[in-house]
Amino acid sequence: MKKVKVGVVGYGTIGQRLADGVALQEDMELVGVADVAPTLPVQALYEKGMPYKLYTALPEKKYLLTDKGIPVSGTLEDLVKQVDIIFDATSAGIGAKNKELYLKYHTKAIFQGGEKNNVADVFFHGYANYEKGYGKDYLKLTSCNTTGLIRAIDCIDRKVGVVKTAITIIRRVADPGDYHRGLTNALQVEPAPSHQALDLMTIMPHIDATGILVHTPVTHGHIITAVVTPKKDISKEELLELFESHPRIRVVRLADGFLGNASLFKYARDLGHPRGDMYEIAVWEESIVKSGRDIMFAINIPQEAVVIPENIDGIRASMKMQETSAEATALTNKYLGMK
Amino acid sequence: MKKVKVGVVGYGTIGQRLADGVALQEDMELVGVADVAPTLPVQALYEKGMPYKLYTALPEKKYLLTDKGIPVSGTLEDLVKQVDIIFDATSAGIGAKNKELYLKYHTKAIFQGGEKNNVADVFFHGYANYEKGYGKDYLKLTSCNTTGLIRAIDCIDRKVGVVKTAITIIRRVADPGDYHRGLTNALQVEPAPSHQALDLMTIMPHIDATGILVHTPVTHGHIITAVVTPKKDISKEELLELFESHPRIRVVRLADGFLGNASLFKYARDLGHPRGDMYEIAVWEESIVKSGRDIMFAINIPQEAVVIPENIDGIRASMKMQETSAEATALTNKYLGMK
Amino acid sequence: MKKVKVGVVGYGTIGQRLADGVALQEDMELVGVADVAPTLPVQALYEKGMPYKLYTALPEKKYLLTDKGIPVSGTLEDLVKQVDIIFDATSAGIGAKNKELYLKYHTKAIFQGGEKNNVADVFFHGYANYEKGYGKDYLKLTSCNTTGLIRAIDCIDRKVGVVKTAITIIRRVADPGDYHRGLTNALQVEPAPSHQALDLMTIMPHIDATGILVHTPVTHGHIITAVVTPKKDISKEELLELFESHPRIRVVRLADGFLGNASLFKYARDLGHPRGDMYEIAVWEESIVKSGRDIMFAINIPQEAVVIPENIDGIRASMKMQETSAEATALTNKYLGMK
Amino acid sequence: MKKVKVGVVGYGTIGQRLADGVALQEDMELVGVADVAPTLPVQALYEKGMPYKLYTALPEKKYLLTDKGIPVSGTLEDLVKQVDIIFDATSAGIGAKNKELYLKYHTKAIFQGGEKNNVADVFFHGYANYEKGYGKDYLKLTSCNTTGLIRAIDCIDRKVGVVKTAITIIRRVADPGDYHRGLTNALQVEPAPSHQALDLMTIMPHIDATGILVHTPVTHGHIITAVVTPKKDISKEELLELFESHPRIRVVRLADGFLGNASLFKYARDLGHPRGDMYEIAVWEESIVKSGRDIMFAINIPQEAVVIPENIDGIRASMKMQETSAEATALTNKYLGMK
Repeated sequence: MKKVKVGVVGYGTIGQRLADGVALQEDMELVGVADVAPTLPVQALYEKGMPYKLYTALPEKKYLLTDKGIPVSGTLEDLVKQVDIIFDATSAGIGAKNKELYLKYHTKAIFQGGEKNNVADVFFHGYANYEKGYGKDYLKLTSCNTTGLIRAIDCIDRKVGVVKTAITIIRRVADPGDYHRGLTNALQVEPAPSHQALDLMTIMPHIDATGILVHTPVTHGHIITAVVTPKKDISKEELLELFESHPRIRVVRLADGFLGNASLFKYARDLGHPRGDMYEIAVWEESIVKSGRDIMFAINIPQEAVVIPENIDGIRASMKMQETSAEATALTNKYLGMK
Repeated sequence: MKKVKVGVVGYGTIGQRLADGVALQEDMELVGVADVAPTLPVQALYEKGMPYKLYTALPEKKYLLTDKGIPVSGTLEDLVKQVDIIFDATSAGIGAKNKELYLKYHTKAIFQGGEKNNVADVFFHGYANYEKGYGKDYLKLTSCNTTGLIRAIDCIDRKVGVVKTAITIIRRVADPGDYHRGLTNALQVEPAPSHQALDLMTIMPHIDATGILVHTPVTHGHIITAVVTPKKDISKEELLELFESHPRIRVVRLADGFLGNASLFKYARDLGHPRGDMYEIAVWEESIVKSGRDIMFAINIPQEAVVIPENIDGIRASMKMQETSAEATALTNKYLGMK
Repeated sequence: MKKVKVGVVGYGTIGQRLADGVALQEDMELVGVADVAPTLPVQALYEKGMPYKLYTALPEKKYLLTDKGIPVSGTLEDLVKQVDIIFDATSAGIGAKNKELYLKYHTKAIFQGGEKNNVADVFFHGYANYEKGYGKDYLKLTSCNTTGLIRAIDCIDRKVGVVKTAITIIRRVADPGDYHRGLTNALQVEPAPSHQALDLMTIMPHIDATGILVHTPVTHGHIITAVVTPKKDISKEELLELFESHPRIRVVRLADGFLGNASLFKYARDLGHPRGDMYEIAVWEESIVKSGRDIMFAINIPQEAVVIPENIDGIRASMKMQETSAEATALTNKYLGMK
Repeated sequence: MKKVKVGVVGYGTIGQRLADGVALQEDMELVGVADVAPTLPVQALYEKGMPYKLYTALPEKKYLLTDKGIPVSGTLEDLVKQVDIIFDATSAGIGAKNKELYLKYHTKAIFQGGEKNNVADVFFHGYANYEKGYGKDYLKLTSCNTTGLIRAIDCIDRKVGVVKTAITIIRRVADPGDYHRGLTNALQVEPAPSHQALDLMTIMPHIDATGILVHTPVTHGHIITAVVTPKKDISKEELLELFESHPRIRVVRLADGFLGNASLFKYARDLGHPRGDMYEIAVWEESIVKSGRDIMFAINIPQEAVVIPENIDGIRASMKMQETSAEATALTNKYLGMK
């Protein structure tokens, strides 16, 4: 079978991980990545010996790269011409501008959570609405919190149905290494309802969702608590079993030393995962409680890597590589090395 | 009327504020405070010129204080003999030992949240169960989160009834100036249900409560999100009005610059409140959302000072100073300078 | 004696404290403060019952204040007309614009560290170059770190002479309550030499100074380590005595519980100082070490309040209220309540 | 040539990295690692499929491991018997106890910085005193800060001689994933002189060193500023060249985006280094300043991995694998993949 040709535009926190994820898919080929300046990720790519070809997204500023001796394989336009589909992982708003180029060459594209919904034909999640993205040219993926949250909610919804959910997002405010944003000794409240609750309803319109988001001064992993009203009663044991059988959910125990988001980051580093990344969300077993029929639990969202699997599912949907979510996610998971 | 004589044992974060709070009550007299060593609060008391008399809780180590020139007015026993009621604000577990002394002199006492419930005759909250504490010799007050949370829940319960609540406590991990505990770049999850949910049910047994607590690396103010199922429907506007009319609840707006817990601490400092303390919990207007009949909102708990008013209510109940919660809390509020 | 009439423009972190500091000086009169919008400090001023008159610095946006019911006593121009001297504590760059107004009315003014040096006739420190500011119309005060550092260096210089110093500034990155800047789990290095070292040389040109500044994610107090080469040898004991005798330096001990910058903030709160402010820098006794003739020590800079005394000294110099630094600083200290 | 057989006792932050480092040395064989309980690193070892054999250091509690299904290859004693040399990376104090076992089997051992100096025959650094460790049975390695600092000082000392140095250690307070210690919104001062300055003088007795250490609430990388008095004058350019030519020192630029310790951690992750580790210390080019003959600069110490190379040098010295520091460090560097 011919491999699907993929390009990545924007080689930052998400772009680097998309490139690595695509490179692991045996039915895809990473043609190259595009960026504009010698950022730290680009410098690291260079120090590693250019495992991926680099294209300049700003041809008139190509010298920014070449002046440092970094080889440039062409322009963004050259990349767009060669590939079947683009992952656009640029800063919010740039994707919408880049789309003109994608349209010009009839190149499909997948945009990230920061873009407006109207940049794409469908707002996509690999498990919750794979069929909506099937064959579509332009997808927009949910953001990290929404992606992880939907995994958990969708998993319950398929088993017993979900009527409504109220979430509290305890958000990490910056990624490790960020200096352009930060918070010091403060919790910051966002106007409610949080966009993640609204986004969940866009993807899963039969569920009533609301929520409050609070920023916290940490860098590893958002924690979300969800109060979920299921259609049918489900016991804590059944819920645990459900979560444990999901390939993108990891059940962990406080008793085993998984005390919080920092433990999960440490564990992923100790596992030898590149960058200490983890694709799975985690559920703390000891966090699961019931209130009448309602269930409440806490999950960890590894913000840097969690969206990678659903993004790759997006290629499978858009390129009609597999017909169903079950087939597509199984392949993505296999190539990414998830259980 | 004869003033009620009060002693404070343990002159730390809570003890200092209890002493200041009692000193403001025109129908009470602060006889003195007791501690064991020249801690920073005791050094500050000395530098201020000893506005309160100091008693040593460890007579055999009185020299720890006198060696620094700090005047000591007697022993803990001397203090217990002179007063009608003691605020015991010692470290968890010490209160239970001190109780022997209080029993010996038939001195009433109020213990803090860190002690076990069986140290006291009743687990007390000035609004939610004042009558249970009326005339009782030994009360235990709820901890800071529970005290503040009950204010909000009780306020709704009186108006429309509360069936159940599911809370998420985003807990500040240390007080400003703490060096004996701390958390760095990590969120820490506690086993659920949190003790605050269980404590709420002890005080308000007709409500079903559960919750998850997550520690965060900040020092000013816990934030709690609560999902509340009321008996009767209540609109956002009615809820706001309810909160605004409560003397120990302050409604604030993100739009006015109250962006999180740190804004409230800053504001209390700018108000000129001693130590930058605030007795009121705060509710963010923009955090209030509904999900069907359920209401969800976020409150701020100023952990150092929030329990002071309910503690003083406790003296009023135990000493039979006022017969009802309404009368007692009104006087406490007036003397503490709340609206 | 006629009191000197003072106005404060910019009622933020520094402006509020300048206003409070002036209000304490028995030979000065605080005419009013000016700002543009209902910031938290302005809301607090209103909630306190308007102890200071408020003027609008943006007459065309007066409604921002009056719409909230906040009384406005006039415009910035009205304030400038009435006073002898202005404290300009606006954001960096605004002071230079405001100066046109001050020139128009021949009103003297004192600018803060954020402005460029050429806004003023002299770059001023109450101890190190009082005579340079004597009678001058426009002074610029040193920033918080430089102000505190110069206190320590000047104190040594007067006794034994200082040849050179190399400083490391461990800088708090934001003030308590700041949400517009912050740093999370990161130390940030600034290009060397730091401006504080350069500023010190401007004020004390006979000293060779250099230094490195590193930002840290905390909000209470910068810590500076200084390596100082004195002209004549000085023992640790003599240095301690020197520091202890300085009214704006507080010697503290780790052994007494002053473990770091957070202990000093806590202590100031426990002292009952408004806002938990401290005017003194602190030196840790156990930090003082020698290396040959060189001395090394660590000081704490309470960034919100440390510049207030030297600012008030600035009024005394500019208005020719006292002829010498010794007389001026003694009065400032007395009215501010320093030992 | 027969490979040197190595065992690692204590599979924590340092132990894991020692094991990985040894596994990369083509002239060494990692026989196995020993620990007592299913900590997160041990759980990760298990999830990775046991690339290293695990021995139990507490035979009577072997069930702690086997109950989780983790295969155990024998006891610590079994490991000690098989190997030529042990890396003891247990918690401070345990190494001294373990030494009895090492003596019993005439097994050499290398202890970490937390142990007392008298546990070993020599206090060792691969560059600064390799010859002292040559053939010795028991070495103690310098701690992370001292190891990195000595690299820089030794490098200058070899070129122009170093008379004295005064250092400021801006210390990260916890490792990523630590929950057993932490600091929140506080800087903490330690009594001076810091042990690192004293340790430097033990290793390099001809240099006069002093210093102050301040803990900061971050997890990635200590930053040390050093004021160094060289014997002969050295220009900034010469110093840069010196640092750039050192295989364990990386020169970085603020202008390239290396803004602080968090940038270096991010960069190591982006390089694909396991766990995001970096063996090199970094020097910021823009931090280098001069004050007369004195030079001042800032270095970054990646606390988790920096000691690994010098530890491996220790095996080379103790086992007489290479006669000189130059030969030994060159091989260590080569196998660890440093330039």
